[in-house]
Amino acid sequence: MDLQAVVDDIAAKLAERRGEGKVADYIPELAKVDPKQFGIAITTVDGRVFTAGDATTPFSIQSISKVFMLTLALGTAGEALWKRVGREPSGSAFNSIVQLEHEHGIPRNPFINAGAIVVCDQVLASYKPKEAIGEYMRFMRSLADDDSLLIDRSVAKSETETGFRNQALANFMRSFGNLHHDVDHVLGVYFHQCALAINCVQLSRAGLFLAAQGRDPISGYSVVSAKRARRINALMLTCGHYDGSGDFAFHVGLPGKSGVGGGILAIAPGKASVAVWSPGLNKVGNSALGSVALEMLATRTGWSVFGA
Amino acid sequence: MDLQAVVDDIAAKLAERRGEGKVADYIPELAKVDPKQFGIAITTVDGRVFTAGDATTPFSIQSISKVFMLTLALGTAGEALWKRVGREPSGSAFNSIVQLEHEHGIPRNPFINAGAIVVCDQVLASYKPKEAIGEYMRFMRSLADDDSLLIDRSVAKSETETGFRNQALANFMRSFGNLHHDVDHVLGVYFHQCALAINCVQLSRAGLFLAAQGRDPISGYSVVSAKRARRINALMLTCGHYDGSGDFAFHVGLPGKSGVGGGILAIAPGKASVAVWSPGLNKVGNSALGSVALEMLATRTGWSVFGA
Amino acid sequence: MDLQAVVDDIAAKLAERRGEGKVADYIPELAKVDPKQFGIAITTVDGRVFTAGDATTPFSIQSISKVFMLTLALGTAGEALWKRVGREPSGSAFNSIVQLEHEHGIPRNPFINAGAIVVCDQVLASYKPKEAIGEYMRFMRSLADDDSLLIDRSVAKSETETGFRNQALANFMRSFGNLHHDVDHVLGVYFHQCALAINCVQLSRAGLFLAAQGRDPISGYSVVSAKRARRINALMLTCGHYDGSGDFAFHVGLPGKSGVGGGILAIAPGKASVAVWSPGLNKVGNSALGSVALEMLATRTGWSVFGA
Amino acid sequence: MDLQAVVDDIAAKLAERRGEGKVADYIPELAKVDPKQFGIAITTVDGRVFTAGDATTPFSIQSISKVFMLTLALGTAGEALWKRVGREPSGSAFNSIVQLEHEHGIPRNPFINAGAIVVCDQVLASYKPKEAIGEYMRFMRSLADDDSLLIDRSVAKSETETGFRNQALANFMRSFGNLHHDVDHVLGVYFHQCALAINCVQLSRAGLFLAAQGRDPISGYSVVSAKRARRINALMLTCGHYDGSGDFAFHVGLPGKSGVGGGILAIAPGKASVAVWSPGLNKVGNSALGSVALEMLATRTGWSVFGA
Repeated sequence: MDLQAVVDDIAAKLAERRGEGKVADYIPELAKVDPKQFGIAITTVDGRVFTAGDATTPFSIQSISKVFMLTLALGTAGEALWKRVGREPSGSAFNSIVQLEHEHGIPRNPFINAGAIVVCDQVLASYKPKEAIGEYMRFMRSLADDDSLLIDRSVAKSETETGFRNQALANFMRSFGNLHHDVDHVLGVYFHQCALAINCVQLSRAGLFLAAQGRDPISGYSVVSAKRARRINALMLTCGHYDGSGDFAFHVGLPGKSGVGGGILAIAPGKASVAVWSPGLNKVGNSALGSVALEMLATRTGWSVFGA
Repeated sequence: MDLQAVVDDIAAKLAERRGEGKVADYIPELAKVDPKQFGIAITTVDGRVFTAGDATTPFSIQSISKVFMLTLALGTAGEALWKRVGREPSGSAFNSIVQLEHEHGIPRNPFINAGAIVVCDQVLASYKPKEAIGEYMRFMRSLADDDSLLIDRSVAKSETETGFRNQALANFMRSFGNLHHDVDHVLGVYFHQCALAINCVQLSRAGLFLAAQGRDPISGYSVVSAKRARRINALMLTCGHYDGSGDFAFHVGLPGKSGVGGGILAIAPGKASVAVWSPGLNKVGNSALGSVALEMLATRTGWSVFGA
Repeated sequence: MDLQAVVDDIAAKLAERRGEGKVADYIPELAKVDPKQFGIAITTVDGRVFTAGDATTPFSIQSISKVFMLTLALGTAGEALWKRVGREPSGSAFNSIVQLEHEHGIPRNPFINAGAIVVCDQVLASYKPKEAIGEYMRFMRSLADDDSLLIDRSVAKSETETGFRNQALANFMRSFGNLHHDVDHVLGVYFHQCALAINCVQLSRAGLFLAAQGRDPISGYSVVSAKRARRINALMLTCGHYDGSGDFAFHVGLPGKSGVGGGILAIAPGKASVAVWSPGLNKVGNSALGSVALEMLATRTGWSVFGA
Repeated sequence: MDLQAVVDDIAAKLAERRGEGKVADYIPELAKVDPKQFGIAITTVDGRVFTAGDATTPFSIQSISKVFMLTLALGTAGEALWKRVGREPSGSAFNSIVQLEHEHGIPRNPFINAGAIVVCDQVLASYKPKEAIGEYMRFMRSLADDDSLLIDRSVAKSETETGFRNQALANFMRSFGNLHHDVDHVLGVYFHQCALAINCVQLSRAGLFLAAQGRDPISGYSVVSAKRARRINALMLTCGHYDGSGDFAFHVGLPGKSGVGGGILAIAPGKASVAVWSPGLNKVGNSALGSVALEMLATRTGWSVFGA
């Protein structure tokens, strides 16, 4: 299969639709991004890279970072993490607080905001706040094989200043005893993790271990066990697109994680790691063109985990 | 891989645990079943069958039937069905009515009770009630390649008499205009579809088309398109185990659908269709031993869709 | 105080606003009513009657009947009734089913639909369905001192045919064991009780015992104890206007019960029973002009229970 | 009526039951209070005072303060306040956040925590934080006619340190734009208002204007209009006891406001203001013995607003 032709074709077909969707506006810095951008990058398990469009333009990783911070937290806490956060789709919006009240402060999964905040809190059991961010950066640079990755401090600051909803979630969980560290410290880590600037090439490279049984197939470095890689993929498939996870599985059929920056990381187990990016979001908060691009890709490649 | 050795080993390892879980007691007829039973059957896409335990003992198909009735309804209504039922995990119990009120009578997916009732209603747009049941039986016998399949009338009657919750769901949806036929007719079809008696061998045979791109690989008969087969698998993975779907994906990693009769149908795309049965249910209503058996099977075979 | 002048003045002031609000359309027979009608009647505890507008035009009593059926049920079951229905405002719409799921089939109060259905079920512990309706009619005719009161069979039939939501509520409660009789029998009573045709004069007369310590001050007949009369008034004040009860207490300050037929019964303890009627409803389902009329009346008379 | 005999009798009858209920333990300072205390004070509109038990022992006013801060806020903002907070019973616990999500950050009424926090925020439109607390103290001392009233700083500090749930509520409302000031400033005012130490005599005196058409009948000072006094009483009756408001109206029949410190203020319009205090709380968070005492008082005096 000529993957370069596939991505070129997808980029060409979507050229006219650039600008669809609505750029996230609740984080002021994100609202400034030009909506007419689209990029895609595929890194295969044998190390080839295929790109089209704005594949080297950095964007804000936002919630896609939850996959990587979860990986870090599982590394320090192991399966005990699952006492503090569930593994079920939420059936509600990414920032809903209703479920937390009904389930006594235990978030439904690590990919909704509340769950990701608990994951940060767990990491703070092993690291001080600044160290935690340092560890995360070291991890991301290593996975992306690119030491130039940086946090966009203006985005981190923008989130810190307007993050009332996340403040609410964190304080609410703390009232149930499911947050152990100072709320501002936990959210400091969370907002910095989300503010990482990354491009499609780097992101697809960083996710490659999930397509390769937990091992980075290029460096040979073992990131997680094969079992844990499968489980993270399972969580991405059932919970990775908030209340659009079922639809993404239905249309694309790959484990994936989206962010409000407009990026999506998708994993084709045994085959490739894919990153797409386009800032306009659909009504459930996932990249509009990114979702379409991945559906086209899955159709063309037959990579759906649900059958060729 | 010696699949016979695998299923024998699973059956042997679970022998001591027979009786775990709690038999469904809200349907009086089901409460009478001996809990110490366990069966497993694998039908591979190349037509081989492997069994262990009580693989030829009939049990009540219950909610696993939702996969087949959905297939029938998509055949008559096509994608228009999705205007009346969603494709997202529910985040709540199989018989919850709360979500229906919040979302104006549109069930979250076709595998919770409310969604399956809408699916029945859709089938009644093409068939009269008795014809609908007849069509369903014809379909099941054809898929299972076994004309001896029968509905257990005592179970159907048992459900009809105590099905107040389903009456509530159906009437509630009708109040929103999302049910078009007489409630008793719709539920009549629904209760009969759930009361089909089937065994593991028959069930694994019936689901084989979902492992084989929509085509029955033995008869060569095309049941659905490859795309539709993938989509049904996606729905099974994200929504097939009620509020335990995330956990099933995490531990087993296969599309699956459970029923309160204790059966589970699991699909390994491109490889096999698997049926397990053990009457005791875990706390979210899925077969306790059946779930464990499938996790063991996935581990031994590497069939998880999320990577070997 | 010249009460006749007061009601004349209210009717005059509201003449221009006749037709405000929206006539209930979910019961087809009610949708046919001319919206430009308004009536008011006051019956004082010393037996005087003051009327203005369409005070002798019959309308459908609808939910106001819940006050009277509750009185009957308390008469047969006593305080044991409160094991099956709560006494708290619901914080949701009159026909919400969400609360029932969260509170295991116990309705929040006897004035939301679910609670009124339980009240009917309780009455069926003492009477067969037809007898229950007969007893209710006997009671209403006695209280209104008018043997001409009749049930409007076309309204009863209209509700029976479209009452899917109430079917849902009843079946849902039955699934929790909080309904003991056949759903159709219970709803049969309920729909007939709601279909009573009554006018303002009759209604204000029927409610008089609640203004007079439980005793009909004209006939001298003791309907309920003074304590029970106070308690029914308390329930009317906290729960009598669905999710507009707080607002009604804030603006009017009298125990009251509204119906979707556009009627409201209000009680001024120690002073009078008041009935108003105008078919147009406000957004929470209470008579728009009726609410305004009662606020004007309370202001003019100083009858608010919260201070002159 | 010999009110002294009434309160003596109530205190005597409850002597054996002292210690019933459960002292609030989520505020550490409150958990230290001796549960076996009980006090009652009645101040009549003609200025007589009747007391029994621990009527001069100070306790923490807690949520009863919401009545007074609401009075202040209405004084500065007028009826515009009602755009930011509703007037309906909540149908849920005093600190529930679910309703806020469903109703877009508008609290149901000013007596649940979220509503009281909005009220504080409104006061901060007119005063700086320290001035707001000063104004509140000036108001309370004036109403209680006692300049010795003080805030218990250890209680205020205790709440500030553990008030994660209120932090969550405040941040949540801020995310909806329904909080305009710094969360810490708003909560600073809120925690100080709740930490006022007051005794039954002072509290019954402070509430007297609500029993006397808004005017302090002793000083002659007009606190609010008669209409506003009625409306505050209405809010107390429908919303003053959280999710036990209906029950309090049913059993006692007086406007009242409870606090987790164990105090209750009850108003008999035109007759008296009553304060009771006993630290043990019932399951909905209201003083167990205090509720019983008020029911006895209402029965003995015939002061129920729902009829003698």
